[in-house]
Amino acid sequence: MLDATTEIATLTIEDMRAAHDRIRPHIRRTPVLRSDYLDTLTGARLLFKCENFQEAGAFKVRGACNAVFGLDDETARRGVATHSSGNHALSLSYAAGRRGIPCHVVMPRTAPEAKKDAVRRYGGRITECEPSTSSREATFARVQEETGAEFVHPYNDPRVICGQATCSAELLEQAAEMGATLDAVVAPIGGGGMISGTCLTLSALAPGVAIYAAEPEQADDAFRSFKAGHIIADDAPETVADGLKVPLKENTWHFVSRFVTDIQTASEAEIVEAMKITWKHLRIVMEPSCAVPLACILKNPETYRGRTVGVVITGGNVDLDRLPWTL
Amino acid sequence: MLDATTEIATLTIEDMRAAHDRIRPHIRRTPVLRSDYLDTLTGARLLFKCENFQEAGAFKVRGACNAVFGLDDETARRGVATHSSGNHALSLSYAAGRRGIPCHVVMPRTAPEAKKDAVRRYGGRITECEPSTSSREATFARVQEETGAEFVHPYNDPRVICGQATCSAELLEQAAEMGATLDAVVAPIGGGGMISGTCLTLSALAPGVAIYAAEPEQADDAFRSFKAGHIIADDAPETVADGLKVPLKENTWHFVSRFVTDIQTASEAEIVEAMKITWKHLRIVMEPSCAVPLACILKNPETYRGRTVGVVITGGNVDLDRLPWTL
Repeated sequence: MLDATTEIATLTIEDMRAAHDRIRPHIRRTPVLRSDYLDTLTGARLLFKCENFQEAGAFKVRGACNAVFGLDDETARRGVATHSSGNHALSLSYAAGRRGIPCHVVMPRTAPEAKKDAVRRYGGRITECEPSTSSREATFARVQEETGAEFVHPYNDPRVICGQATCSAELLEQAAEMGATLDAVVAPIGGGGMISGTCLTLSALAPGVAIYAAEPEQADDAFRSFKAGHIIADDAPETVADGLKVPLKENTWHFVSRFVTDIQTASEAEIVEAMKITWKHLRIVMEPSCAVPLACILKNPETYRGRTVGVVITGGNVDLDRLPWTL
Repeated sequence: MLDATTEIATLTIEDMRAAHDRIRPHIRRTPVLRSDYLDTLTGARLLFKCENFQEAGAFKVRGACNAVFGLDDETARRGVATHSSGNHALSLSYAAGRRGIPCHVVMPRTAPEAKKDAVRRYGGRITECEPSTSSREATFARVQEETGAEFVHPYNDPRVICGQATCSAELLEQAAEMGATLDAVVAPIGGGGMISGTCLTLSALAPGVAIYAAEPEQADDAFRSFKAGHIIADDAPETVADGLKVPLKENTWHFVSRFVTDIQTASEAEIVEAMKITWKHLRIVMEPSCAVPLACILKNPETYRGRTVGVVITGGNVDLDRLPWTL
């Protein structure tokens, strides 16, 4: 059984398969949508894997469920814990709720009330910290000591990466059901959990499929890491694609450095434009982060023209009162 | 072969099946989505049939494709025509484009440019009229005389009703695939095309399934017709659910009066609230009209609690710069 300290290089496609069997009762096989209009616009055949339709609104339920349902009963009883104010906190709360165990979430007291409410709706127990790294670390250490809860990192955890890897396994199957063969997959990159899972699956099951990571220009630490050959972490990047601000870590760097074909970037305006185009023509509610791949496809037509391209729509938790094109 | 003058009482489930075979290459078998959150909120098990994911953004492509692809070659060559500034005009343009024949659309010159652009994007040829019934009728008569195009009414045409009927046939199949058995279906009612198709299919294939029509309080002519036992047509109702302003006609009244279980209504505020809830928790872009069913479900919990309910999401063509909760 995997745990948080499993050596990343030992993960195999069998770990992905075991994860898929473990989480299948708790996740959705989300639909793949397409649009003649977007195909004409890009000159490619785009297959959008809509992880925004997961119950908790993001692919992160896959990794969270794999971590939670892989725990032995004694460990599980003490619960799980994480520090995140985003989709991982929601997803871990959702997964823990499905297993009936506690989920402790350390969040800055300044996080939006809507995000706190969403975590609580899924049963997560919030401990507030000050909005600084030192306060977060100290608070988290205290929560962990008091509860004995198992830490589940949002993306650097091998169990999480194996869970995210199930997404592209489904995408391969669904493309085949649609009579298509993927030439490439594009996914957004923040900490690299989704991209790492994509690498784990495709390198084994479809090694000919190119893997592109899409990143905001204003948070391009993965792009610069990829070019430099080592991890570069920014301090506090600012981008509308707020799910993508976090840096790579050693376990995701393992996959990014070995299996990613290229990393492309897009400007803030290009991201917002691609987001609005997708809402209008695919008619889905998705986060700005999910628009970075289409922005990169529109910006680099020579990479994608004439090819069948899987695009991962990573999440759909947005503030409907503050859409970026209305601000 | 059906035509615009086919006696409505002669339609059978075989006409629906023939329509489905005819249009299958041109439409999508749209996914059925669900949400634990919405199920908990309503106490029902809701299956949302997402016709907003049709290429032209609405179920109306089903009826339009059935009409267009059922024409003999000589008639088809002269094209089709309609007067509509909404989803039927888009859908008929889309269908005609797939067959490579002209589609003439008479629209008020005051219609929003975005709607005119969308019709043109699908190849529709617009003739503008003044925004009055007399101008529309005179202009339409002239276009038809000049072109010889076949008139396809947005909902009173038997070919259109048979096309719309394919939607609930798919919903029945998809519910079964999900291990569910429908107790009821709720769809919005305007002119009654979708509801009539639903009646045609369910009365034959699943007569035990209750059929509810959902209507805005401020455009409740179908509700009042249903109670009175004859068609009552309002002059110019005003509602945020702008797809639902049109009155019943004799062919849709045939089905509504015979097969509908009940018609329920919701206020403007209830519609907008249900729309926002669906965008947030189902994470789809849909029109205000599609929110009327959920608004009625929330308002009449005793009708739906504990039941498995199909909800037709009819379309997703909205102005993203003018969402009703931001106005």
